[in-house]
Amino acid sequence: MAELVGNVLVGQSGGPTSVINASVAGLVAEALNHECIEEIYGTLNGVLGLLNEELIDLASESQQQIRALKHTPGAALGTCRYKLKKQQDFERVLEVFKAHNIRYFFYIGGNDSQDTADKISKLAKEQEYELRVIGVPKTIDNDLAVTDHCPGYGSVIKYLATTVREVACDSESMGQGDLVSIIEVMGRSAGWIAAGAALAKRRDHPHDPPHLILLPEVRFNQTKVLEDIRRVLKREKFCSIVIAEGLVDDDGNYVAANAQTDSFGHAQLGGSGDALAEIIEANVPGVKVRVAKPGLMQRAAAHAASKTDADEAYLAGQAAVRAAVDGESDKMVTLLRGDADEYSCETGLAPLSEIANGVKKLPADWINEDGVSMNFQFLRYAQPLIQGEVEIPHENGIPVYARLDKIRVEKTLAPYETS
Amino acid sequence: MAELVGNVLVGQSGGPTSVINASVAGLVAEALNHECIEEIYGTLNGVLGLLNEELIDLASESQQQIRALKHTPGAALGTCRYKLKKQQDFERVLEVFKAHNIRYFFYIGGNDSQDTADKISKLAKEQEYELRVIGVPKTIDNDLAVTDHCPGYGSVIKYLATTVREVACDSESMGQGDLVSIIEVMGRSAGWIAAGAALAKRRDHPHDPPHLILLPEVRFNQTKVLEDIRRVLKREKFCSIVIAEGLVDDDGNYVAANAQTDSFGHAQLGGSGDALAEIIEANVPGVKVRVAKPGLMQRAAAHAASKTDADEAYLAGQAAVRAAVDGESDKMVTLLRGDADEYSCETGLAPLSEIANGVKKLPADWINEDGVSMNFQFLRYAQPLIQGEVEIPHENGIPVYARLDKIRVEKTLAPYETS
Repeated sequence: MAELVGNVLVGQSGGPTSVINASVAGLVAEALNHECIEEIYGTLNGVLGLLNEELIDLASESQQQIRALKHTPGAALGTCRYKLKKQQDFERVLEVFKAHNIRYFFYIGGNDSQDTADKISKLAKEQEYELRVIGVPKTIDNDLAVTDHCPGYGSVIKYLATTVREVACDSESMGQGDLVSIIEVMGRSAGWIAAGAALAKRRDHPHDPPHLILLPEVRFNQTKVLEDIRRVLKREKFCSIVIAEGLVDDDGNYVAANAQTDSFGHAQLGGSGDALAEIIEANVPGVKVRVAKPGLMQRAAAHAASKTDADEAYLAGQAAVRAAVDGESDKMVTLLRGDADEYSCETGLAPLSEIANGVKKLPADWINEDGVSMNFQFLRYAQPLIQGEVEIPHENGIPVYARLDKIRVEKTLAPYETS
Repeated sequence: MAELVGNVLVGQSGGPTSVINASVAGLVAEALNHECIEEIYGTLNGVLGLLNEELIDLASESQQQIRALKHTPGAALGTCRYKLKKQQDFERVLEVFKAHNIRYFFYIGGNDSQDTADKISKLAKEQEYELRVIGVPKTIDNDLAVTDHCPGYGSVIKYLATTVREVACDSESMGQGDLVSIIEVMGRSAGWIAAGAALAKRRDHPHDPPHLILLPEVRFNQTKVLEDIRRVLKREKFCSIVIAEGLVDDDGNYVAANAQTDSFGHAQLGGSGDALAEIIEANVPGVKVRVAKPGLMQRAAAHAASKTDADEAYLAGQAAVRAAVDGESDKMVTLLRGDADEYSCETGLAPLSEIANGVKKLPADWINEDGVSMNFQFLRYAQPLIQGEVEIPHENGIPVYARLDKIRVEKTLAPYETS
């Protein structure tokens, strides 16, 4: 494989996670090791920065800030949910690549982002512009195909399992009347996140909170759920419920009202927790219901991130650079779990097209027959992903997160009209 | 002062905090130092346990579990919001005290709880039953009179300021269109908790998130708030808002709908965040609004507690025992701040009646003229309360919290009918 000399471009896309910046840190650290890489740029707000030629010089950031990216939430380069629509958009991207001699493009994101990367890669090939494109997985939703799991997932479920255990300590101590505590978590169409709350249970303590996990995979049956709640209340005097925002009823309708649609055509949900609270209050006399809705908090809670997750996100960034330098392209880094009893994880590669068009579902046989709890197969899968705590420096009592200088790379092209 | 030999009874009351159990740990540790104290009991669920003669033997708990109380959320002894209503209830309490030779009663709680303790103390005096009653302050609301601040407050604002900073990292990175992120926090009638989110700002960075803090002390003026939001969006492209649940409009009505009432006659609020979101969406075209509502999470988030707060809660427990053994009664432990520039805190005592009937308001002159941010006087007050992080042991990736054995003390009285 002939050495390809040129510049690196890194972009972030889609909803941030607690560890998406750890992948940037891994990418930058690894890129510095390779002489064929001349400049290390970032694109501001993913493909939006590409269209607008808004690039920043990552090599000029202080080492301190790049290191701090390992524990900083949000997307430090900026992100977007913009979808490249027309052929002209893709042509523009390549024009920007050519103008800045970008030969290595790393895109950190989920399905939609890997699809975008795939299309850019294929257009470059068509135009015989030598470009190596490697995707880096990122999503709290854990729904990317091929990879065993996705960076971002371990941290969101560690935070939520911690939260469920804490709120249960609180609810359990309220000694007067029955109390139902609902935590509404993200999960548009898959229950990976809600399922992760099962890790709040101690081993061999099936009655530990959360008592009910309501997954999008299991149709919401009001009669059955109310029966479940009454049974738990009778036993425990309180009932801890984790509910996915994307809960669907027997007729296939979202339990939450007011579904809106984002720019990728996905439903933006919210309110399944409040909807369930109303149902409970109307049907279980004298019960108190409290709803918590962490919303964006859950994907930004770097202060409670999983060290395993952060380390793997960093590793995925490093692996992307090594693969590209070794001549790979049009692939995404995957995480491969070792076969041994003790958890181990290394990286692999899979074609971007396989990622772009696949979705990894929560296996139906990992859900217990009761429909509201997870079995040992899920626990064996998820447990290793939340191990270890990330040490975060604090200043004046609050975590200190990276702030990049974002020094702009000079524009050389005429402005582009984004639609 | 003649030595008073007998048993100790500890109770917890009202809403838990992240550090209410640290006070129990301090009480138990200190009680063990005094030979005049024979048994150390806890009452299950505060006054409910007293009426029902449900006492547990705290001395028989393992030292490990008592130590773990220092970082365990919820109320480990159980708590309640039950209000002793009739004279008969108070007589029953004394009857239980006499039956178990309780000579030292420590009640950890807020205004209502200190009022209860005061009445019990006065009845004992009337009946010439020698009893020493010392209250221990506890409330995330920080609204107790006399004491400089309340155990529980530092931890809730540390958690919320951390959360505001993290969610801001996330919101700031969404590069497409305007985004308003609302975090609805507790605070029925006072803005102490919402104000604490101001600690997310770095010093001398007035434009840092949170951009708007909406306090119950400042009447909600829709036109003005919408103007504020538009101005921030123009400058930052995102707007971080912290809103108290008890926000009141120009006519004195709660901005949140559906106010209910708890057993003390306080309004149970919720929904000011959703109400504000609707107003913004109806008036600011094209803006996206995301609401997070941590609810019970905020008062249970021991994993992000303030070490200063936890240490002071422990100290308050110790001080209560020492005061009682020294002959004090009918008082609450207060926290006194030193006069020096460097923060220091020691304990004092104040009559229970002063606590029971007072409320500490957020000083109006600590709110900036803009009505949506806090000035340096508030920051100087609050900053020291969030310093330091509590180390929490983890098992399988999740914090490990204390679980008491709760070995019951044998009942000796006939059952009592609670109303």
